[in-house]
Amino acid sequence: MGFKLIRSNMSTKIKCIGLLTSGGDAPGMNAAIRAVTRTAIYNGMAVKGIYRGYKGLITNEIEDFKTQSVSNIIQRGGTILKTARCAEFQTSEGRKLAYDVILQHGINAMIVIGGDGSLRGARDFAQEYDFPIIGLPGTIDNDLNGTDTTIGYDTALNTIMECVDKIRDTASSHERLFFVEVMGRDAGFLALNGAIASGAEAAIIPEISLKKDQLAEMIEMGFRKSKNSSIVLVAESEVTGGAMGVAERVKKQYPGFDVRVSILGHLQRGGSPTAQDRILSTRMGVAAVDALIEGQRNAMVGIQNEELTLVPFVKAIKKDKPINRDLLNVLRIVST
Amino acid sequence: MGFKLIRSNMSTKIKCIGLLTSGGDAPGMNAAIRAVTRTAIYNGMAVKGIYRGYKGLITNEIEDFKTQSVSNIIQRGGTILKTARCAEFQTSEGRKLAYDVILQHGINAMIVIGGDGSLRGARDFAQEYDFPIIGLPGTIDNDLNGTDTTIGYDTALNTIMECVDKIRDTASSHERLFFVEVMGRDAGFLALNGAIASGAEAAIIPEISLKKDQLAEMIEMGFRKSKNSSIVLVAESEVTGGAMGVAERVKKQYPGFDVRVSILGHLQRGGSPTAQDRILSTRMGVAAVDALIEGQRNAMVGIQNEELTLVPFVKAIKKDKPINRDLLNVLRIVST
Amino acid sequence: MGFKLIRSNMSTKIKCIGLLTSGGDAPGMNAAIRAVTRTAIYNGMAVKGIYRGYKGLITNEIEDFKTQSVSNIIQRGGTILKTARCAEFQTSEGRKLAYDVILQHGINAMIVIGGDGSLRGARDFAQEYDFPIIGLPGTIDNDLNGTDTTIGYDTALNTIMECVDKIRDTASSHERLFFVEVMGRDAGFLALNGAIASGAEAAIIPEISLKKDQLAEMIEMGFRKSKNSSIVLVAESEVTGGAMGVAERVKKQYPGFDVRVSILGHLQRGGSPTAQDRILSTRMGVAAVDALIEGQRNAMVGIQNEELTLVPFVKAIKKDKPINRDLLNVLRIVST
Amino acid sequence: MGFKLIRSNMSTKIKCIGLLTSGGDAPGMNAAIRAVTRTAIYNGMAVKGIYRGYKGLITNEIEDFKTQSVSNIIQRGGTILKTARCAEFQTSEGRKLAYDVILQHGINAMIVIGGDGSLRGARDFAQEYDFPIIGLPGTIDNDLNGTDTTIGYDTALNTIMECVDKIRDTASSHERLFFVEVMGRDAGFLALNGAIASGAEAAIIPEISLKKDQLAEMIEMGFRKSKNSSIVLVAESEVTGGAMGVAERVKKQYPGFDVRVSILGHLQRGGSPTAQDRILSTRMGVAAVDALIEGQRNAMVGIQNEELTLVPFVKAIKKDKPINRDLLNVLRIVST
Repeated sequence: MGFKLIRSNMSTKIKCIGLLTSGGDAPGMNAAIRAVTRTAIYNGMAVKGIYRGYKGLITNEIEDFKTQSVSNIIQRGGTILKTARCAEFQTSEGRKLAYDVILQHGINAMIVIGGDGSLRGARDFAQEYDFPIIGLPGTIDNDLNGTDTTIGYDTALNTIMECVDKIRDTASSHERLFFVEVMGRDAGFLALNGAIASGAEAAIIPEISLKKDQLAEMIEMGFRKSKNSSIVLVAESEVTGGAMGVAERVKKQYPGFDVRVSILGHLQRGGSPTAQDRILSTRMGVAAVDALIEGQRNAMVGIQNEELTLVPFVKAIKKDKPINRDLLNVLRIVST
Repeated sequence: MGFKLIRSNMSTKIKCIGLLTSGGDAPGMNAAIRAVTRTAIYNGMAVKGIYRGYKGLITNEIEDFKTQSVSNIIQRGGTILKTARCAEFQTSEGRKLAYDVILQHGINAMIVIGGDGSLRGARDFAQEYDFPIIGLPGTIDNDLNGTDTTIGYDTALNTIMECVDKIRDTASSHERLFFVEVMGRDAGFLALNGAIASGAEAAIIPEISLKKDQLAEMIEMGFRKSKNSSIVLVAESEVTGGAMGVAERVKKQYPGFDVRVSILGHLQRGGSPTAQDRILSTRMGVAAVDALIEGQRNAMVGIQNEELTLVPFVKAIKKDKPINRDLLNVLRIVST
Repeated sequence: MGFKLIRSNMSTKIKCIGLLTSGGDAPGMNAAIRAVTRTAIYNGMAVKGIYRGYKGLITNEIEDFKTQSVSNIIQRGGTILKTARCAEFQTSEGRKLAYDVILQHGINAMIVIGGDGSLRGARDFAQEYDFPIIGLPGTIDNDLNGTDTTIGYDTALNTIMECVDKIRDTASSHERLFFVEVMGRDAGFLALNGAIASGAEAAIIPEISLKKDQLAEMIEMGFRKSKNSSIVLVAESEVTGGAMGVAERVKKQYPGFDVRVSILGHLQRGGSPTAQDRILSTRMGVAAVDALIEGQRNAMVGIQNEELTLVPFVKAIKKDKPINRDLLNVLRIVST
Repeated sequence: MGFKLIRSNMSTKIKCIGLLTSGGDAPGMNAAIRAVTRTAIYNGMAVKGIYRGYKGLITNEIEDFKTQSVSNIIQRGGTILKTARCAEFQTSEGRKLAYDVILQHGINAMIVIGGDGSLRGARDFAQEYDFPIIGLPGTIDNDLNGTDTTIGYDTALNTIMECVDKIRDTASSHERLFFVEVMGRDAGFLALNGAIASGAEAAIIPEISLKKDQLAEMIEMGFRKSKNSSIVLVAESEVTGGAMGVAERVKKQYPGFDVRVSILGHLQRGGSPTAQDRILSTRMGVAAVDALIEGQRNAMVGIQNEELTLVPFVKAIKKDKPINRDLLNVLRIVST
């Protein structure tokens, strides 16, 4: 498929696109909203902005979107369409309600921006009602398959890095250990890449189960190297207990150490998107409309090797995106 | 006193200034180090940089500082002189060791940049050995008396604000409560001013003991106002348990609420200093050398009403700096 | 006057406040708009947002402002009310048109946020129609009398500093001279304080006429000091020709030098406001409504020595705010 | 080639790597210096840091680099090794002097970080003396072939975007046109991608010669769309005269317009590198040492499709890297 932007004879019947964001916020969602809206209008279609994700679809929180509706939003974090998680849409009753609202508004295709839960909802709905939907990968976790990166990931990575940069400024006493908890319950992209980017000493990620001795070895090696202090990024996790859990264990084992914890929390989801996230979101937004025009459906727009692609929902939401294990070696060597 | 910068006949005997940073890092310390060094050299004096605060004074970690030693540091967080807390200096034996090192290096005056603990050490040493010391208020907490603001406070305030700005981006669901823990165990300047600056709904500060009902009232009022979500800044505290402690109590009282916690931790101490902190630090650094030349001693440089002043140590370290309670009203009104 | 925030028996008749921003944008204007709106509503008054300054007053671009109208704007640069310069309002015919619109909307007091031109307009209108107006000092130039600082000044100063920080990163070759043009046609606050904050070597400001030899001396001294390169901040000026003009002269005198120019331009007016600007704007916004309630009029809210004050328009707009000349010495000493 | 990081039997004879940065600064160079140094030491080799590029190679400004030499630099803009342009190295006499210094220090391989001029020098030297050199693409312009991106490009793009974001804040009057000059004399990557990222209306780039009518059409279309104002990014150029040149022409054609110019200049070369630039630089630095160990030479490390590759110098420096013309369409559609 080509994602050509200008076509002479559109064979499609799509007149009105419904657009929503769903799940956790991701910086760049607004840039995608802007691109979808303007590309659709440029191609003669109407756009309906659906508020609060699938929830607003069910409760009919819908507005006409014009070119001006998306002015001056490209730089903003969050999503002007708001987002919500919606248990009701996971039931066929909920989806039926949603379909009625869609008919009522004359919406004949949808673009859904969100993470794997949101795309799973899209897949179910698309199958049930044979309805054309294109998804965009909107999640800071970068845990969607079939795309090198997701909307919001680059911004979150930079946010984490800037936080750790600040912590490093203060890290001057000899036996101080900082544990910084970052997002990524199921995927260590943020923790591992964040550690490399910020010059942290180590990352504890869900893909690698850390034996007790390994943590100890890491810490002792860090201090043997006569570094002023060590910073470890810890992915949030119920298994390890996150930064608090790891810190508690270390305190017991090394009572003399000065251990400190930061939990970044939801600030990782916000902030003005980076250039990469805005460009990615813009290109993906244009491509999503383009895909609908070309008759594509039930797939997520991805980017692979700088080229936009379409990834079937079923593949995109498989939670097995591999992390680049070479990066573990890179981290180990450069934090020597 | 006038802090005039150019004098014709210097009556002082000071030939060599020892310079150290002590206690918690504060952004702007490097700008102060630069200003002290260059002003001293400009006035024909030598400067000895003492590493790791009073600890390095005792263990003789001292280097000659030249104009070039402080090039390209004004913009950096942390302190190139490192900092440490030092229990030994709190004993008269420790201070005796320090004095020997001072004599050995020919240091005949000191400038100490730090918080109330550091200035308390300076006061003790100055009295015991009749030694001229000028202090600079280096602490993000802004809890030193006799100065409108302290080195690092403005930067920390901006750091907190930027973090909360990011959290607000993601705050879109209806019953979500964010508790963000900031520094200021004894003083609520960061929490209260941070809340006003970031448009947060409330601040829980050590100066005001919050009754259980008040927190409840605040939360309920917040939701009655149909805001999307509420953000509360919480000063770290053993009394309240900080953000985690408050969150636990709220979860019990309002089981339906979606409560989230961020603990900013040491990232608040780092970062490139703001313009205010750099200008303040620079002016104070110049003034500290000037004060020594004029024969002043045993006082902290402060700023009041845009004018530099000298504050006796004994006054500066009294922990009773009042918070501007009008600001509580301001916060209440604008977060309506 | 006390700016007390809660009053029992309001003796004022003010029911509806018209609010506008005028002249050049200044970061913090939105925070002031938010504070004025919410304080007025808190005190039982209505607020009318007037778009595009005096222009929108004449052309009747006016909307009711509610608490929600100002949600989520405290962090935004620019002004949601837009701003414009308006020649028509400088004529009595124009002001007559404006007055008719005011009557039509039932507005019986105004709050004007802007620089000296805007406050001059407010003064004329207030005199002509005996109409209560309170001004807020909204200008990045800090050139209004009777206030230590103005809304937007701190943000612009930080913006300039961050730009110069970046230039310094690249300043490594031996005979390179950077001239960076900043705003401040009539007042050197930004150039002088920006130079101190960024560690620049010198500032060329309108308050000090620079003789040809002085610039040469400065440049030669800079290179004798074996610094890698020199950065000079230049206030925009028709007299000097700004950074381009100065650079041209230097190139002629020192043909071997590698001279580079940056012209920051309007980016200095934008950006998310700093904590100081947001807190200042918020406090001033609350105080402006408070002043109207207390029956004050035809004055600008200022801040002096951390206390809010009222400054008669006639004093505020006198263009003779003195620059702190001690800072010139400070800059000279620390850039040694 | 595999860039495996741990090898059992190293067949190479390389004992000592000389490392230099050359040409214009690019953020991320320090991260690359850190990664090269630590990877070499990790593999048992010595590292010599060569200051001021080829100039310092000729004048023997060389220091031993240890693990600690590169501590706490990953986050810094510029290069701790300094950089310079060096005409002498373009002569065979100059290169002979350099070779003598290399022999004197026992350097038996080099890693050169720089742009096309620097890599051209490396190619010449490598051929003349049959000396193993690996290059890293260090340039904000992204104009090197065989790599999707270069060290510093992502940071510069974000810097430009943040500047334009600030300008947009102030862009509220109806007929105002901002021309913002960015770097990229020969390549429009920064201008075009910067325009998309910042939501600017258009980009004037060297790859597309703009006819007079096209500029006019663009401007008129912009105002027909009733946008508040228009922002155009202009690549520096002797052909167009850059932002000043374009602005002059527009002013003549549209005398009523309020035209403003910003020239960002060298601030685009500075600043703390983004996460992408730090990770890229780190990975490339590790790979460069790895390539030398594997016996590779006279090639630049590139990244294609997220995979590290080696690109022969002769290919890398061909100045014909194509710009993605789809992006011109994207810009046109989303700025509607």
